[in-house]
Amino acid sequence: MTNTRLCRTFQTAPAGVPRDDSAKYLLSGLTAEGWQAPDWLVPDLEDGTAPDCKAEALENVCDLLPEYAPDFAGEIWPRVEWGYGDEATRERGRDQIATLAESVGDHLDGVVVPKVGRLDDVRAAETAVEAAVQESGHDIELAIIVETARARSDLREIAQFGADSRLSALVFGPVDYAAELGGRDVGGSPAWPGLYEAMSNEASANDLLAIGGPFDKLYRERAGVTFYNGEAYAEYVEREARVGLDGSWSLHPNQTEQANRIHLPTDEELREAVRKIETFNEAKDEGTGAVSIDGQMVDEATLKNFENTVETVRAVHDARETQARECYDADLLDRALSVV
Amino acid sequence: MTNTRLCRTFQTAPAGVPRDDSAKYLLSGLTAEGWQAPDWLVPDLEDGTAPDCKAEALENVCDLLPEYAPDFAGEIWPRVEWGYGDEATRERGRDQIATLAESVGDHLDGVVVPKVGRLDDVRAAETAVEAAVQESGHDIELAIIVETARARSDLREIAQFGADSRLSALVFGPVDYAAELGGRDVGGSPAWPGLYEAMSNEASANDLLAIGGPFDKLYRERAGVTFYNGEAYAEYVEREARVGLDGSWSLHPNQTEQANRIHLPTDEELREAVRKIETFNEAKDEGTGAVSIDGQMVDEATLKNFENTVETVRAVHDARETQARECYDADLLDRALSVV
Amino acid sequence: MTNTRLCRTFQTAPAGVPRDDSAKYLLSGLTAEGWQAPDWLVPDLEDGTAPDCKAEALENVCDLLPEYAPDFAGEIWPRVEWGYGDEATRERGRDQIATLAESVGDHLDGVVVPKVGRLDDVRAAETAVEAAVQESGHDIELAIIVETARARSDLREIAQFGADSRLSALVFGPVDYAAELGGRDVGGSPAWPGLYEAMSNEASANDLLAIGGPFDKLYRERAGVTFYNGEAYAEYVEREARVGLDGSWSLHPNQTEQANRIHLPTDEELREAVRKIETFNEAKDEGTGAVSIDGQMVDEATLKNFENTVETVRAVHDARETQARECYDADLLDRALSVV
Repeated sequence: MTNTRLCRTFQTAPAGVPRDDSAKYLLSGLTAEGWQAPDWLVPDLEDGTAPDCKAEALENVCDLLPEYAPDFAGEIWPRVEWGYGDEATRERGRDQIATLAESVGDHLDGVVVPKVGRLDDVRAAETAVEAAVQESGHDIELAIIVETARARSDLREIAQFGADSRLSALVFGPVDYAAELGGRDVGGSPAWPGLYEAMSNEASANDLLAIGGPFDKLYRERAGVTFYNGEAYAEYVEREARVGLDGSWSLHPNQTEQANRIHLPTDEELREAVRKIETFNEAKDEGTGAVSIDGQMVDEATLKNFENTVETVRAVHDARETQARECYDADLLDRALSVV
Repeated sequence: MTNTRLCRTFQTAPAGVPRDDSAKYLLSGLTAEGWQAPDWLVPDLEDGTAPDCKAEALENVCDLLPEYAPDFAGEIWPRVEWGYGDEATRERGRDQIATLAESVGDHLDGVVVPKVGRLDDVRAAETAVEAAVQESGHDIELAIIVETARARSDLREIAQFGADSRLSALVFGPVDYAAELGGRDVGGSPAWPGLYEAMSNEASANDLLAIGGPFDKLYRERAGVTFYNGEAYAEYVEREARVGLDGSWSLHPNQTEQANRIHLPTDEELREAVRKIETFNEAKDEGTGAVSIDGQMVDEATLKNFENTVETVRAVHDARETQARECYDADLLDRALSVV
Repeated sequence: MTNTRLCRTFQTAPAGVPRDDSAKYLLSGLTAEGWQAPDWLVPDLEDGTAPDCKAEALENVCDLLPEYAPDFAGEIWPRVEWGYGDEATRERGRDQIATLAESVGDHLDGVVVPKVGRLDDVRAAETAVEAAVQESGHDIELAIIVETARARSDLREIAQFGADSRLSALVFGPVDYAAELGGRDVGGSPAWPGLYEAMSNEASANDLLAIGGPFDKLYRERAGVTFYNGEAYAEYVEREARVGLDGSWSLHPNQTEQANRIHLPTDEELREAVRKIETFNEAKDEGTGAVSIDGQMVDEATLKNFENTVETVRAVHDARETQARECYDADLLDRALSVV
C-alpha cells in the first residue's frame, strides 16, 4: 500500500471463447457498470483461452479496445503467454506484446506476464515490454504473476528491479504455485501466509502494487442447491486486505463488486480514522505527543494508519465519486476530504 | 513436490541401543512390511544413539545392511554426526561417512547430515560425501537437516547449491530449531509456518525433496490410560502435505503407516483429479480454455494440480503396487493410469 | 534466544509531556519496583513525545539519570529520532545520541533508533553511535526498530551486520509497519507471523536480542465499563514467547508486570525441564541415547530445550532473585540451580 493508484480489482476475462460471440466475456468486462466495473480489466490470452482460440482472442482485443476502452473508467492490462522454462512460449508472448502495443498501445496501461521464473526471466519480460514501447511509442507497464517457486525465491530482487523499471505490479497466482510446490487440499487448502507477507512487504519497499490471487471456487452446493460462494470470497479478500495487498483478483462480476467494496475502508474505519486524526491534532496543539483515544495509545506512528485510510478514500473519491458518496455519510466524507 | 521420487516417510531408528540385541530397532525397520515399511529408513548414529553405543551402532549398520538391504524396498540413508560449531564432531561425521561408503556403500542411497550451519558448512558436508564417493566408487547422495538459525538464514542459497551437487533433500529438525531460537510451548507450540513454506518453495525451485520434522509426542494420556497419539500425528502430517512437503518424519511403525497413507492422494482426491482432467480434455477438444466443473473454474493452471495427483499415484503404483490397489477402486486406478 | 541477557520487558516512557511535572512518566519508569520494573527502560524522545516537548524531554533524561539510574536494576536505552527517508530527522537523531552519550553516557546501556531503512541506513545509525562512543568514552550499544518495508527486506543482512557491530537488538514496530504496508484491521488485525519468525531466526543466528512490538489497545470497554485489557496482552506476549522472542514491548506498568512474568518459564515448565534432564541423565548413565519420558521421545536435541528453560531461570535468579523465589517452589529452584 501507500500506493494510492487504484487497483482494488484485477478482473481477468477470457478474450476468446468458442462460441459465435467469442468476445462475450471481454465485452462484458469492458461495459460493466457501477460496482461491477473492475479497476483493472485483464483480457486473458493465456490459460483462460484455449490454444485454438488464441489468435481470435488477440484479434478481439485489438478490435474492441478502440471502441470501448475510451469509455472504460479503469485500466486495461492484457495477460499474454509466457513461461520461464519454454522459449517457444516466451517468443509467443513477445509477439503478443508487440502486436498489442502496435495495434492498441494507446488504450493499454500495461501487460500482465505470467509464469515468470527467476530475476533473469523477469528482466527478459521487461525487455520485451521496453522493445514494444520503443517500437510503438506508447507507454506500457509490466505486471508479473508470482506463481513459480523460482519467482518466489527471487521475489526480493525482482521487486527491487521493479523500483527502477517498467515493472509496477506483483500479482499472486496460487493455482500454478500450489502445483509447483505440490500443495494439497487436505484438511484445508494451503494459505501461503509467508508469501502474502513477502509480496506486501517487497511491493511496499519498492513502491509497486501488490495484488492477490484468484479464488476459483465460484459456486457452492448445499443440500442440492448451487449458489454464488460470496461468503468465502469475502473472507478471502479480507485476508488480502489485512496484510496490505492493494487489490484482489476477480473472476466474475460478483467478485468484482465484493472486492471493490472490501478494498474501500468501511464507514466505521473512516469514522474512526477521521475522529482520531482530529482528536490527535487537537492534542498536538496542546503539546501532547501520545494520547489515549478510546483506549488506544495514539502517536505519530499510529496516525499514519489513519491517514492511509483517509487517503484511500480520497483516491476513490477522485476516481469513482459515486462509490465514495454511496459508502460514506456525507458529513463524514466532507470531514475526510478536509482533515489534515 | 513435482518430484515423483518417493519419500513419503523418513523413519529414523537408533542403530545401537544398550541391550543384548543392540540392533533391535534397526532390524525392525529393515524388516518392516506393508504400510509400516518406510520409503526411507534412516539408521541413526546421531542424537538417538548414546555416546557409548555409537561404535556398536556403526558396526550394526555395516553388519546388517549386506543381509537385509537387498530385500528392503525403500531407500537407506544413515544419519551421521555433525555440528556447524564443532570441528571434532564434524571430523567424526567425516569418518562415519567414509566408513559407511567403504563398507556398505552399495546398499546406501545417501547420508543424512544434521545440525548444519550456513552455506559454507553445507558445502563442507557435501565435500565429505564427495570424497567418500570418490574413495569408494559408490554413488551416495546428501540430505541435510535444517535445524539451526544459520541454515534457515541461508536456506535459499543452500537449496540453490543443491540444484547442482550431491545435496538432494532438505529435512526439518524442529526440536533443535526451537532450542536455538528459544521457542516455547506456551499456549501452544511454535508452528514455524514461514519455514515450512520456505522449505517447500526452495526445494521445488531446485528440484530437491522436502521432508517434515519428527513429532515426538508419540503417546498421550487421558483419564489414566496412555495410548498412541494418532489423531495429533495425522493432523501434523496433513499440515506438511498441504504446503507441498514430499514426506514426513516417522519415529514409530504406526507413524510410518499413517504418513505413508496421508502422503498418498485419497480416493476422493484421485477421483476428482481424474474426472476434471477427463472433462477438461473433452472441453479442450471443443476449443474451450477454461471451464466450470462442479463450481470450480478449471484452466491449464488448475489442471497441473490434478496431473500432480495422478502422477503421484502412478509413482506409488510403480513402487508399491499393492498399496495403490488397496487405496483405489480398480476402475478409478485404471482411469488414472490411462488418462493423459 | 539462547541469549541469556535479560530483556523480558522493553518499556517505553515519554520523556517529556505537556504538564508541570513533564518527567512524570520517565520518573515513574525509573522508580518502578518489583514486577513492574522493566528489564529495559526506554525514555522516549520520538513518537511518544510531541515536537514542542522534545527539547525538554532530552533535558529530563539528562537531569534524572544521574540521580535515579544508579538504583535502577535494569538497563536504560533512550529512543531517539530517526527516519530513513529524511536527512533532517537523522541529523536530529545524531545530535540526540551525541548529547546523551556526552551527558549521561555512563548511565546508558544503549540507544534505540527507530524507522531505519535498508542496511545502509542501519550502518549510518551505527556510525552515529560509534562516533558518540569515541567522543564520550562510554560504551553504548544500538537497538533498532524494524518497522519499515525496507528494514524487513534487508533483515538478514542487517542482523549479520549486528554480529560484528554495536547493533545488539532487533525490536518490532507493528504500527509504522502496518502503515507502510497498508495493513488493515478488517475481520482481525494483521499478525505478521513471517516477520516474527524471521526476527527470531536472524537474531538467533547472530546472537542478537529480539523484542516484540507494542500492544496499544491498553483498555477495553464492555457493557459500559472500561478496564485494563490484560487478557489480550497476555495472549499477545505468549505468542511472542512461543516463537522465541526474548522480550516484549510494554506501554504501562501492568503490561510490564505481565510480560516480566510470561517471559519466565512457568513452575510447570521448569518442573518438566528439570525432571526430564534428570531422567535423561540417569538413562545416559545406562547408555541410552533416546528415552521415552511421559510419552515424549527425549534425546540430546530435545534436551537443549529443557536446558534453555533452566538457564533462563538461572539468569533471572542472578538478576532478580526475589522474582525467581516467588515463582518457583524452593525445592524445584534448588534442583534447577544444581542440575547439569
